This record gives sequence, C-alpha cells and structure tokens, in this order.
Amino acid sequence: MSTILLAISGWEPDAWLSRFRQHGKQHTVRTVAEIGDPAEIDYVCAWKPPAELLAQLPNLKAIFSLGAGVDHLMNDPSLPDVPLVRIVEPDLTRRMCEYVVLHCLLHQRKMKLYGDQQAKKIWIEHPERPASEVRVGLLGMGVLGQAAAAALAPLGFKVTGWSRTKKSVAGIETFGGEAELPRFLGQTDILVCLLPLTPATRGMLNYNFFKRLARDGVLGGPVLVNAGRGGLQVEKDVLRALDDGTLIGASLDVFEQEPLPQESPLWSHPKIFVTPHNAAQSDPEALTQYVLGQIDAFERGEPLRNVVDRKLGY
Amino acid sequence: MSTILLAISGWEPDAWLSRFRQHGKQHTVRTVAEIGDPAEIDYVCAWKPPAELLAQLPNLKAIFSLGAGVDHLMNDPSLPDVPLVRIVEPDLTRRMCEYVVLHCLLHQRKMKLYGDQQAKKIWIEHPERPASEVRVGLLGMGVLGQAAAAALAPLGFKVTGWSRTKKSVAGIETFGGEAELPRFLGQTDILVCLLPLTPATRGMLNYNFFKRLARDGVLGGPVLVNAGRGGLQVEKDVLRALDDGTLIGASLDVFEQEPLPQESPLWSHPKIFVTPHNAAQSDPEALTQYVLGQIDAFERGEPLRNVVDRKLGY
Repeated sequence: MSTILLAISGWEPDAWLSRFRQHGKQHTVRTVAEIGDPAEIDYVCAWKPPAELLAQLPNLKAIFSLGAGVDHLMNDPSLPDVPLVRIVEPDLTRRMCEYVVLHCLLHQRKMKLYGDQQAKKIWIEHPERPASEVRVGLLGMGVLGQAAAAALAPLGFKVTGWSRTKKSVAGIETFGGEAELPRFLGQTDILVCLLPLTPATRGMLNYNFFKRLARDGVLGGPVLVNAGRGGLQVEKDVLRALDDGTLIGASLDVFEQEPLPQESPLWSHPKIFVTPHNAAQSDPEALTQYVLGQIDAFERGEPLRNVVDRKLGY
Repeated sequence: MSTILLAISGWEPDAWLSRFRQHGKQHTVRTVAEIGDPAEIDYVCAWKPPAELLAQLPNLKAIFSLGAGVDHLMNDPSLPDVPLVRIVEPDLTRRMCEYVVLHCLLHQRKMKLYGDQQAKKIWIEHPERPASEVRVGLLGMGVLGQAAAAALAPLGFKVTGWSRTKKSVAGIETFGGEAELPRFLGQTDILVCLLPLTPATRGMLNYNFFKRLARDGVLGGPVLVNAGRGGLQVEKDVLRALDDGTLIGASLDVFEQEPLPQESPLWSHPKIFVTPHNAAQSDPEALTQYVLGQIDAFERGEPLRNVVDRKLGY
C-alpha cells in the first residue's frame, strides 16, 4: 500500500483520480490540491506537473509520465533523481500506427487535392503512383517506429528507419547516427517523425533538414509528418519549405505552442493537415492500469520497465 | 499474330494504342476509328465500347474488359457470346486496398470533424476508439474483398465479409447469401461495398439496407464506403440516411451518373468524402501487359483466366 500523487495540468484531473482510485484500491491516491504531507508521497503520476513540485517530495520512489514523451518533465531542472518511467503501452502504440498509416495514405493518395476538388465540385482524376513506389522514412525506430514500420509494410510502402543508434529490424533498411542521416533523408519521400524531444532533437525539423529530403520521388516532392513533439519543428521553416516547394505537404499533430494559437498560419495553410495532438490519443483506462501494474510489480521487488535514460532524455 | 481492336470511350485512346503497340509488337492493334475489315478482328479490349459494335465482329474470339467491372459491357443486349474476361491484376487490387484502408481510417479517426475544426481553427480533442473496436463489413469477398480484409487486419479492425456464396477465408468471419445478410449487417459499423454491378445488386445500397446496419457501434452510427459501382447505391437514400442519422458518414468513389453532376448535393454534403472514381486507379502499363499476356497464353492453347459467368454477371 503506497501513496500516489496525481500531478496533472491541462487535462481533466477528476476522471484520472476516480480511475486511479477504482483500479488502485490498495493505494492512497491524492491530487496536488489535497497533497497532504509531502513526505508520504511514494509515487507521482504526472502530466505537465507544477514546476518544482516534485523536488518537494523527500521520499519519492519513482515518477511516471502519463504520456509517451517525458520532455514535459525533463525541462524541470529540479526534477528529483529517482527513476523516471515513460508509457510504453500497446493501445497507445496501435493508435500511433493508425495515425501514421492514415497520413501516409492521405499524402500518397493526394487527398488535399481531392478535398479541394470536392469543395469546388471538380471531377478530375490525377495520375497516382501506388504505395509501393513511395518511400516512407521513419525518424525514430523505438517501439513506435518499429510498430509503424510493420503497419505500413502490408500496404506496400517502402519503409526505412533512422535512429540515433542504428537498430536492426527484420525486413526494414535502417540507418543510424548523424553519419547515415544524409543517405536516409536523400531517399525519403514521406518523413514521419516519431522522435522524443531532447536538447539534441529540438529544432531538428528545419529548412536545411527538409532540403536534404528526396527530390526524385513519385509524389513530386517530400512530405513531413510530425507526430513527435512540436519542439522538434521550426514552424516558420515548415511554412517556408511548403511555400517554395521544398516540401509539398505536411501533417502536423504537434506544435511549438499548444493549443496551436489562433493566429498561426498553419491552421489555414492549404497543404497542411492539422490535428490537435491526438495522433496517439490513448485509453486512460489502459494507461492507468499500465502505471498501477508497474507500481505493484515494483513493490513486489521487480524492476521498473521503460525507465528513461536521463542523459539521452528518453 | 492476331488483330486486336481497342474500343474505348471516356478515356484517352491514343495512349492506350501506343501502349498496346509497344508491348504487343507481334499483333496488329486497331482503333474503332480505323477498324478496317471487321472480320479480321480477333480480340476486343474494351472500356464502354460503342453500342452494338462488338456484335458486328464475326470472328471475335474473346472480349477483355479494361476495368475490374464488366457492367459497362453486360448492359449491351447484343454482346456476342464469346468469353468475356475481366481484370484481376495485383496493382489494381493493391490500390483498392489503399482506398479501403484510407477511408476506414478517415471515418474511425473522425477526419471530417477534424477537417472542419481545422477550417475553423478549433483545437478540441474528441474521444476516439481504437480500430480494434470498429467492425468493418466487406460486401463482396472476391479477390478485392479478400485483399482488403488482409490489409485492414494489421491495423486491428474487426473485419467480416459477406458474399453471395459464402467464402471461407482464414481469420475472417464470413457470411453468405440473403439468409446471413441481416446478421452481417447487424454487426457492421463501416460497410465497405466492393460488389460488381449486376441486375441482382443494382440499387442494393438503399435506405432499408442502411437501417439494418449496427446501431450499437463505437462510432455512434454506421458508415458507408462504396468503391464498387454507382448503380449499387440509391443516392437519394444515402442523403436521407445521412440527414436523419441512419448513417453518420460516407465515402463515395462511384456514382449513379459519372462524372457526378454539378447539381448533385453529394458534392457539398458535410459528411461525405467524394472522389472521382479513382479508388482503384490502376497502372495502364500493368493492365496492357495483363491483357496481352492472356492473349498470348490463349493463342498457345492455354485457357483464359477470370472469365465472367454471364448468368451471374461477374
């Protein structure tokens, strides 16, 4: 029996509280508003927690991120030095695969063009090339990247993957590190970014990066799909690249500032699919059970799984 | 060495002529405009040929449809009684799978709603259920239906299939005939129609049919995806069903009249994705080689493949 603190902002906390209390009856579950004695808190389950709050918990054993990324925690310099656990959960992974397959097909099948034609009542069929001639490059080959590769392959897409450290994945050509990045980008028509946000990846999706993508593909130019984090992209560069033809389309689920501000030109850009950071919307029930399952296993003496490497930031 | 007549309307004939001449150098290839002696024609490759033309070819050995469907030929009462061959070609099949997966994801992921929100600069995340809770019912379990089932399954969709004659397909629950239709429809959230147009299927997608679809699904109501033929659907019934909530969305690639007339309310309906009969746009090169390959095999004495059953109409 432990004491769990839910430290959530931006999301509705009550539903999370009742879920944790329902599935974790053996534990005491508290919110920031009714935190009680900070020395009693064993675990924190967090989404964008109040700054410096976690440093005030002297007996904290572990921190659980309630999202796949942990950048919302890593930017707190006072983050206590206890294990930091990220979500690796099948439901979240499958939903990210849905998003990736959907948006690769949207661009391969020219659905912005056909949507515009529908709005104008125009019946014109454009030449299209099959998925088997479209090269999808996955930036990030962790659990999500590998699952996305497996989901894209049955449709015929030619899938490659890049990661900081080269991964060996059956049936997929993979690239690793800075040295192999140019070759990876040079043969990518649709770049799908699933990277975590770290000091090393911040601003990586910039104009010079887009310039290195393939120019010889069947889509007529490269496409950016970002389902990672908004901080990875330089939005003015995305706009510049779309406007001068360096990119021909984009799907953005994440943004430098969220919610995406009303005045952002991304909203109304004719070549961009904007979604409200829901690519891998996941089942709160599944996440709750994942976290409680880890806590119970840890209390039984088992090691925590999916602990973040603080140096790498993921 | 044979004489092949290209009888095409609605498509650009010159490109087809040069393709057939390039790949079939051993044959004489003619167009309707320069048909020469009708008695010399051995084979016709046809897309919506001029009415009664084929009956005037006394030595015709076989007719090849240049589309997956043969309804454009079967409605000619004077169609000569020679083998009628339809296209069953991997490229066409794969592109139909792209369409089916894309449109199932578009509806499951509420992309009409998110597209509307983008247009209005609205950032709201709606609860979504994963593909694994969405039941896709394939109407038609021939080559296309079976391939679509295989393409949908890796994303988690719960796939079932119905065909006139029950088919046994590994891993898929199948239904057959009129007797099992109610049970099939009653557990279908997204109905994907891939049926051929025959006297038995004309007008099948009507209001009463939509009423039999599942009402208890996670999407909030059933969805129609028609990539078969426009003659299968009663468009005023599709509109009525969308407007009274019997259907909550539709993707229509085919229409009662094509091109879809400017005055059709389908164009601007907020719940319909309209595409210009390009679901299974296929590679003319691949189709040309398929037909010429069949002709060469037939000339060597091998049987024709994918011959239409005139009684069934497909």
